[in-house]
Amino acid sequence: MARVSLKILKRSRKSRARLGLLRTPHGVVETPALVTVATQAAVKALTVEQAESAGSQLVICNTFHLHLKPGEKFVKAAGGLHKFMGWSRPIMTDSGGFQVFSLGFGRDFGLSKIGYKGLTAKVGLKHKPKLLAITEEGVTFTSYLDGRKIFLGPEESMKIQAALGADIAFAFDECTPPNADRAYTKMSVARTHRWALRCLQSRDPKQSLYGIVQGGKFKDLRRESAKVIAALPFDGFGIGGEFGDDKRTMTKMLRVVVRELPEDKPRHLLGIGHPEDIVRIVKEGVDTFDCTVPTQYARHGTAFTTRGRVEINSSKHLKSRWPLDAACGCPVCAKYSRAYLCHLYRAKEMTAGTLLTIHNLWYFNEAVRRVREDIRRGRI
Amino acid sequence: MARVSLKILKRSRKSRARLGLLRTPHGVVETPALVTVATQAAVKALTVEQAESAGSQLVICNTFHLHLKPGEKFVKAAGGLHKFMGWSRPIMTDSGGFQVFSLGFGRDFGLSKIGYKGLTAKVGLKHKPKLLAITEEGVTFTSYLDGRKIFLGPEESMKIQAALGADIAFAFDECTPPNADRAYTKMSVARTHRWALRCLQSRDPKQSLYGIVQGGKFKDLRRESAKVIAALPFDGFGIGGEFGDDKRTMTKMLRVVVRELPEDKPRHLLGIGHPEDIVRIVKEGVDTFDCTVPTQYARHGTAFTTRGRVEINSSKHLKSRWPLDAACGCPVCAKYSRAYLCHLYRAKEMTAGTLLTIHNLWYFNEAVRRVREDIRRGRI
Repeated sequence: MARVSLKILKRSRKSRARLGLLRTPHGVVETPALVTVATQAAVKALTVEQAESAGSQLVICNTFHLHLKPGEKFVKAAGGLHKFMGWSRPIMTDSGGFQVFSLGFGRDFGLSKIGYKGLTAKVGLKHKPKLLAITEEGVTFTSYLDGRKIFLGPEESMKIQAALGADIAFAFDECTPPNADRAYTKMSVARTHRWALRCLQSRDPKQSLYGIVQGGKFKDLRRESAKVIAALPFDGFGIGGEFGDDKRTMTKMLRVVVRELPEDKPRHLLGIGHPEDIVRIVKEGVDTFDCTVPTQYARHGTAFTTRGRVEINSSKHLKSRWPLDAACGCPVCAKYSRAYLCHLYRAKEMTAGTLLTIHNLWYFNEAVRRVREDIRRGRI
Repeated sequence: MARVSLKILKRSRKSRARLGLLRTPHGVVETPALVTVATQAAVKALTVEQAESAGSQLVICNTFHLHLKPGEKFVKAAGGLHKFMGWSRPIMTDSGGFQVFSLGFGRDFGLSKIGYKGLTAKVGLKHKPKLLAITEEGVTFTSYLDGRKIFLGPEESMKIQAALGADIAFAFDECTPPNADRAYTKMSVARTHRWALRCLQSRDPKQSLYGIVQGGKFKDLRRESAKVIAALPFDGFGIGGEFGDDKRTMTKMLRVVVRELPEDKPRHLLGIGHPEDIVRIVKEGVDTFDCTVPTQYARHGTAFTTRGRVEINSSKHLKSRWPLDAACGCPVCAKYSRAYLCHLYRAKEMTAGTLLTIHNLWYFNEAVRRVREDIRRGRI
């Protein structure tokens, strides 16, 4: 497999946005692009054909979850992730570093990556997460499936990701909790940098590898992390963790980071992408980003439309012969009324989740396509 | 809407099997045919496109469930079931009569229609089901959703089915429990006959209506019921209830019933159709039959194949690069390995249920297609 490369077709004059082609061993991705989340080697509620019909260009699977189930040896025996899941387009695998947060401090504090407003409890140097142990070597997880201990360090993550065989792997890191204090974040980010070196030493040279910038919401730590990671021979760069509580802080922090990253290499923003974020992050020079919002919200009955969110559980939709979004060209809006989707959701038919997921993915992919068009035409 | 009619293309010389075309306002069904179950106006786990891709020719929805959710007025306002669910092929609605059993004695005794082997408790004239009241007028159900009382009698069922607007409605009946004694069955079947007359009087004349033969496992009651119902001006005939504990008894009882039914009208067997039953029931002259087996088993991880059942939960499949059935032409077997399907099922991904449902429906539809071919070629 050849490594990935980014061909930049056009740069915005008004922002850091760029239009590009990300070349991978499994085809070309038009960037900026949404990366569809397929945690367990499946886009939840969809078949591969449906994910394609929703316009998904590439997917991101999860190293930690696939290590637990089914185990990378089965994926490798099947010929790698592409053959295993029947997805012929590009695939990324994240490193397991997000689970260091979500199954550690995230669980202890009941936190999602961006849900910490109003929380006063801080994570400092003296704190340890309850269900996992983080050392210089790596992280010992306790499986949520059967309680067994699972050790993941940089070398293990690289080995598993090589076996999974995605086009793009990510370096193993610690995604620091949003309530980490400065001392904890500084210690953690330095360790993430040492892990980055170990990842480069143990990587599969045939697979592309993105380094990950951390640093929490501390501007100087972010800048420092970006400089260190940018100087290493990665094929691209991930930007992880959280950026502070509001969108403006996120934008500023992204700017600090992206400024340090090489112009000619792809940049991926990990786990961010509400509709209102898309233009913002693209303007800061992000090429790809993944987000569970379109799929997860769909399964909980929220559809994104050009006229705002639609909560399909509301019985008012039972009378509506309109599609979710009259301005939408997706296969769901072409065929199904709100009345039917509302009925399916209220009747707890799985098909509701399927149809809303197709719509939401289309909606997000279409939003990003328009952003590309705007860059092409010099409107961004 | 025109009423349905059956054009018989060929009759078997060796059995009562017949090859036909069931003409409906929404197209022609090649018979014998499996009717795919779409209880709540959706084939569980599938979109309409997927149900079509699995070869389903027609579906059967449930009057009782759709009356509860979303309520027939919403379906009618949407332009009827076809428009509501986006299914352009023929649709049947059953009458609610099965729920008289399943939510009544069926629930009290923990019985399915054919699961009563070894049960010694009988239902006699003095017994009453706990959660519903059956009178000459009709049946008062207690909603499992909110405890409210729902009355369904022949007139109500006809009215609801007219609003749902399927191609074929069924008369309201009592599906007698498999452990009903002779006295109870005799009383019930006589009432079902009186209800049949009331259904004919209150039917929508533009909609086709099938009468239902009951009589439990009592040969003389079955024959009597078939004679009474056959003499009424129905557009076709349903055969309901159970037929005794073993396949041979079922066959004999079907023969008793079918002998009394007019040759030129379609016959539907309600809720029976394991793969091993298909040839048997077709040989007795059944034109259509519905069964939850392909869809329900799929969601519980059982795939039907030309080499027997595959329990996809078994971890032995994680190593298999084979499809579910190497002899199968379905879109799932064309693309997905057992390893992947096994992973999806074990990882609790909804997509497992979707893919197995497509396969099982295809498998059943293909089995019935081969039966049609066998009749055509004089092999049955």
